Amino acid sequence: METIAVRSEERDQFIDITDRVRRAAEAAGLTDGALLLYVPHTTAGITVNEGADPSVARDLQADLARLVPREQPDYRHREGNSSSHTRASLVGSNQVVMVEGGRLVLGTWQAIFFCEFDGPRQRKVYLKALPA
Amino acid sequence: METIAVRSEERDQFIDITDRVRRAAEAAGLTDGALLLYVPHTTAGITVNEGADPSVARDLQADLARLVPREQPDYRHREGNSSSHTRASLVGSNQVVMVEGGRLVLGTWQAIFFCEFDGPRQRKVYLKALPA
Amino acid sequence: METIAVRSEERDQFIDITDRVRRAAEAAGLTDGALLLYVPHTTAGITVNEGADPSVARDLQADLARLVPREQPDYRHREGNSSSHTRASLVGSNQVVMVEGGRLVLGTWQAIFFCEFDGPRQRKVYLKALPA
Repeated sequence: METIAVRSEERDQFIDITDRVRRAAEAAGLTDGALLLYVPHTTAGITVNEGADPSVARDLQADLARLVPREQPDYRHREGNSSSHTRASLVGSNQVVMVEGGRLVLGTWQAIFFCEFDGPRQRKVYLKALPA
Repeated sequence: METIAVRSEERDQFIDITDRVRRAAEAAGLTDGALLLYVPHTTAGITVNEGADPSVARDLQADLARLVPREQPDYRHREGNSSSHTRASLVGSNQVVMVEGGRLVLGTWQAIFFCEFDGPRQRKVYLKALPA
Repeated sequence: METIAVRSEERDQFIDITDRVRRAAEAAGLTDGALLLYVPHTTAGITVNEGADPSVARDLQADLARLVPREQPDYRHREGNSSSHTRASLVGSNQVVMVEGGRLVLGTWQAIFFCEFDGPRQRKVYLKALPA
């Protein structure tokens, strides 16, 4: 298991970790298979979406904030971050990506984003190579 | 493939299955790899989120109910559970978690929840060990 | 890695690819393990849900359109498809399904849907066999 350390600087922030995952995939020595990317946190997630234009991640973040606003009169969890937990479950806490010829296989416009929903915090993403 | 049987008692219910998955992971004899958790139903799902304070799962359930209410004037499916199907696709029907040293790797606050959206029913979760 | 070509004909369209995935799973020669299904696009996704009654997929599509409408005054991405990107992240760009005895394992009512959110387009789904 490899670990990528991520430092978020805002309460809501999408951080492009594609290059770091790509290097980790190559370092793992896996020729053919899949890479499991796993976020061990409950107020952060991981998603694959467009990385070329940063406004896509920004609009996605705005949509998630619109779907699950910070406050709801019936929230029972006392830490004030129930919406962060819900947003994390909507994008998910793992992604599985492909590796071929020792390299990460992504679509032309795809990037991998660590999704912070309750920062700023020091975070981690775990990686595990699964051979084909 | 191992199977965990889950009995839901409410229409909407999140059931913490972490301990059962942990035992299944240890029984599988997998030292290093991943565990695929798969829900073979279309009105239930599976998610990873905070387990320490039960109010987190309760608030997540309330958010999903707010996002996808039971009734919509344009629903065409006659069984009255279209919202259950949508909620299932939002959380997803599989999770992939890590195994290291023969043990399940979860974050400090993470628990694995079976998400019932159309209970009460007798349900199943399939588990498959994928070696690293 | 196998590739399934998918041709969408509408802007929003769910396409049942279960039979094609089933055949690809059998052709892969995998006896026991999992199949990673990966969509290399950023305005399309993949989900598992009911296939017996087509109105379920239609209602799910309507719910996603309701949750993330086409226009928002604050969208910054200029291509007019921010909502397509968000819907893609909500359903996700990968699914992992099980294979046993050389055959795909799905629940009785489950089907695998390619989810087009910005068609019509020529699309692809990648498949990778991961042995148990």
